[in-house]
Formats: sequence, structure tokens, C-alpha cells
Amino acid sequence: MINKLIDKITNLQAPIVVGLDPMLAYVPEHIKKAAFEEYGETLEGAAEAIWQFNKKIVDATCDLIPAVKPQIAMYEQFGIPGLVAFKKTVDYCKEKDLVIIGDIKRGDIGSTSTAYAVGHVGKVQVGANSFYGFDEDFVTVNPYLGTDGVKPFIDVCKEENKGIFVLVKTSNPSSGEFQDQLVDGTPLYELVGKKVAEWGEQHMGKGYSYVGAVVGATYPEMGKVLRKIMPNTYILVPGYGAQGGKAKDLVHYFNKDGLGAIVNSSRGIIAAYKQEAYAKFTPEHFEEASRQAVIDMIEDIKGALSE
Amino acid sequence: MINKLIDKITNLQAPIVVGLDPMLAYVPEHIKKAAFEEYGETLEGAAEAIWQFNKKIVDATCDLIPAVKPQIAMYEQFGIPGLVAFKKTVDYCKEKDLVIIGDIKRGDIGSTSTAYAVGHVGKVQVGANSFYGFDEDFVTVNPYLGTDGVKPFIDVCKEENKGIFVLVKTSNPSSGEFQDQLVDGTPLYELVGKKVAEWGEQHMGKGYSYVGAVVGATYPEMGKVLRKIMPNTYILVPGYGAQGGKAKDLVHYFNKDGLGAIVNSSRGIIAAYKQEAYAKFTPEHFEEASRQAVIDMIEDIKGALSE
Repeated sequence: MINKLIDKITNLQAPIVVGLDPMLAYVPEHIKKAAFEEYGETLEGAAEAIWQFNKKIVDATCDLIPAVKPQIAMYEQFGIPGLVAFKKTVDYCKEKDLVIIGDIKRGDIGSTSTAYAVGHVGKVQVGANSFYGFDEDFVTVNPYLGTDGVKPFIDVCKEENKGIFVLVKTSNPSSGEFQDQLVDGTPLYELVGKKVAEWGEQHMGKGYSYVGAVVGATYPEMGKVLRKIMPNTYILVPGYGAQGGKAKDLVHYFNKDGLGAIVNSSRGIIAAYKQEAYAKFTPEHFEEASRQAVIDMIEDIKGALSE
Repeated sequence: MINKLIDKITNLQAPIVVGLDPMLAYVPEHIKKAAFEEYGETLEGAAEAIWQFNKKIVDATCDLIPAVKPQIAMYEQFGIPGLVAFKKTVDYCKEKDLVIIGDIKRGDIGSTSTAYAVGHVGKVQVGANSFYGFDEDFVTVNPYLGTDGVKPFIDVCKEENKGIFVLVKTSNPSSGEFQDQLVDGTPLYELVGKKVAEWGEQHMGKGYSYVGAVVGATYPEMGKVLRKIMPNTYILVPGYGAQGGKAKDLVHYFNKDGLGAIVNSSRGIIAAYKQEAYAKFTPEHFEEASRQAVIDMIEDIKGALSE
């Protein structure tokens, strides 16, 4: 799956991923109205609204992008109906041959981590049969519990040719509270980065590992260091655009082969129609605003990389 | 909700919580057979089996225990049907007036953490209406992303009189990989513990905070130190029994008032019938084995605390 991701990135010349994090406030009125008319102002109505919203964005952008990253929290907040919309979104993106990075940030120990891995990137056994629960291609994983928490994901990924992205340095303002603490002069995120590189050796694709890392766009100097510590690790980069990360800051997240990083934008793409720059598309044609925002993002990053 | 938890612990003289982590391998054949006859060897069949298993255990133990801790991973592995069984279990335990600690170990940033909080311990707004998604009383939270990740949970909990338990020192063998790293001579888990105490001041109940901590039974010396660092923090203690933690090790997790800690057992209770000590109950009466295991666990801890 890391090979497929890299092939798609190379063919499309687009090291980007669209974050499908549909807050209800992003969904245009006409979509919400239709959903609420059918299901009422209920969890089912909200789930239908975000699913229809996603579908339009996927239809309008899937020929330009290698991957999507649905953020499961935005679905989970609507309980079971929300998670049904998450599953529909994953299945639909699979039909469109997109690589799906489930942003689930799970992490537990032993058999519990195995259960998460089985549910999201593997198959669960029921009697004589086995089933995919959610069936993403990659998931994000929290490293706080150490190797016991991460290894079960790697084991399941090996069977399925799937992968993970481990949180190393997150994009938020307070990420440094624990992640930047110095251990014998080395910040914790570097120790985590070293472990990610080590875990990654257990499951290698062509040049890059199935075990990737999350490093926020908002900390470019740290990204530069982490790039060197983890040479064969794909870096998933949140924080571009709405959170303040700029294309020129992202150059050092890439290797000299032009690969090694994939940059996420969520709000900046899916709620593009709310920005002044894309207002001309109007809320009725929000998906065209998203398409234009994808084109602009690809150009922006390409420009920075070619400098 | 922390007050309710403490009242129930005091009235029942039982500082324990039963972990509802139903792996299919724990479910006796007759329960599985009935479920598979109705739904086939499918995700729905598996979900029915774990739900019926839970129901019997809850019925057999609910008059003895203050709380349950369903581990969501064990349900999530069965996809949507599994999560429906999780929700049914939460609702059923609520009917029985048990305090429900959702062991979800979520953690993200800003609006994403808010979404998790809203879905699990709060209400989500849909148009003019609001709905509970899963509606646990407490959830476990991962601290790796810092205050940005935890604060949104606290904000939602304040509105709802609910609470969280933040992972401080987990019970697994490799938990030390990052958690024990020394920062200016202080292990990271102590820094996290200090933050938990600080966060807890924002949302206090009677003597104890709505912001609790998870500290594994397998590291009693660290538990002793953390108890002092977080005097007003309730400690949720996993790792008793099956993972090797013994009652005598747990004494220092409690304060002098006899409160301050709640000890979890999962496998040791729900799969008690598989242990030699409870084999006489037979798999057909597994729930009676669970009841006896609860009684024995309460005695074991009471004995250790009175010494």
C-alpha cells in the first residue's frame, strides 16, 4: 500500500491528501436541508448530510489526488449513524481507487491494539469466516504506550500490505508540552522518530516503509531534523493552510528524490467555498471550489519544491 | 459523576471496576451458538454474542460493583455491528445505574478532541436538537498531544458533570520506552501526572477531581510517587490479576481516606469460568463464576487495605 501511495503521488505529481473532516458547519445549507428533510434534525440527518457532502467533494477531486484522510472523530461525534457515514465514505473512496488514511489516532496495548488494528486495517475472524470492519489502507497511531502498542498494528499491516503513520510531532500549539521535553539533550519527539525508523525496518516497501510518521507543518525546523533521523519513513504532514503551515516550510520534509512526504489539507479544501478566494463558486457549487483549492495547493507545493 | 462514583464505591465497599472487554474467545459456546444460529457467523452474529455475554455478566454482578469499563477496541474490531453492541452495553449498564468508564484512549487536538468529547461524554448539536452519541460517564484520554488535546474533554465534561482518566503510566511492559524517560531527572510520567493534577483543579468534585489518571498496577513504586504528586486525583488502576498486579501492591494507590483509586479487572472477572479456581461453575453458568470472582476480588483488595 505504501508502494501504491507513492505510485499515485508520482503519477499525479501531487504529494497531497485531502482531509475529510466534515464538521456540520462546513456543510452548505442546501445539502443539510435535503438531508434534514429526509431524516429530520437527527443523528441520521447529520450523518446523511456529511456523507453527501463528502461524496460531492470526492467526485470533484478524485482524479487529482492520491489519497484522502477521513478524521473519524468528526463521524464518531454523531454516534452510530456517524460511523456508518465514515464507513460509507471509506467504501466510496475505495471505489474511486483512492488510498485511505484513517485518522483514528488509536493506541492501546497487546490484544487491545490488535483489536483496533484488526478492525481498521485487518480482518476479524468470526467462526469460519473473516470480515473487514472499516478497511482503511493506513491508520494513524499514538505512540505513548510504546512498542507494545504499535507492534500489533505492524503485525496486522504485514498480513494485509497496509500501513500506519505514528504521531511523532503534532501540529498543535501545545504539542511541545511533552513531545519537546529534553531527554539527555534530545527532545522526546526525536526519540519517538528513532523508534519509528526502527519499527519501520520490520515492514519495508520500495525505498520507504509501511510505518510512516506524523510531523506537523507548523514546526519546520523539527521536520528538517526528523527527515534525517527517519530517511526511509514517509511523513504525513498536517497543519498546512488553515493551521498556518506554508509550502516553503515543507521543503525539508521531502527527500532529494522528491518523495517522502504527503501534505494534508482539510478545512482549506473541503470548506474552500467559505474563503474569499473561492467565494465566486458560491455554496451551491462548493465542490468546484474544493477542486480549485486542490489545484492551487498542488501548484503551491510544486512551486516551493522546485525552488 | 466523580461524586457518584465515590458514593457507590463507599456504599458497596468496593473500589473496583469490571472491564467489559469481550473477546470472542471468552464467550462460552452456548452463547456463541445461539447468536450464530440467529445471525450466522457474521459481524452481526459476533456482536450479538458479545452483547448477550455482557448482559449476563452485568446482571450477575451489578449489585456488587460501582462501575464497568467497556474497552471500545473489542467492539470496534467488529465494525459497525460491534459498535452497536458497545452502545447497547453502555445503555444497559446505565439502566442498572452503574458508572460507565468508556476505555477509548482517544486524544487529538482542538475541534477534533471536542468532537470525540461530544460523541462520548457530551451532546452533539444537529439543527435545533442535541443528541448523546455514546453517552459514557467517563472516558480515558491519551495525553501525548498536550493541553490542546485534553482541555476540550474537560470543557465538555464541565457542562455534563462527567469526567476523564488521563493515561499517565500504563501497565504494559514497554510503557517505559517513552513514559519513563528522564527529563532533568524527572520521569516523563511524573510530568504528565503533575499536568493531570493541574488540569484537575479546573473541575473539582467533593475532594476529588473529575480529571483522573490511569496508573498501571504493575508499577507499584511509581504508583506510590504518583499518588503523592496527584493528591486529589482518582487513579484508575489496570493490570490487576491477569497482568500480574497483586492487591498488596495496590495499597499505595489509595489515600488515607481509603479512597482515591479504583482497580480494574477484565479477563479475571469476565472469563473467570476458564480459571481452575472457578471451573466448578462450568461454562454454562459462566456468569456465576464472574460473580464469585468479583466477590473474591473485593475481599482481596479489602484484605490488603486493612493490613
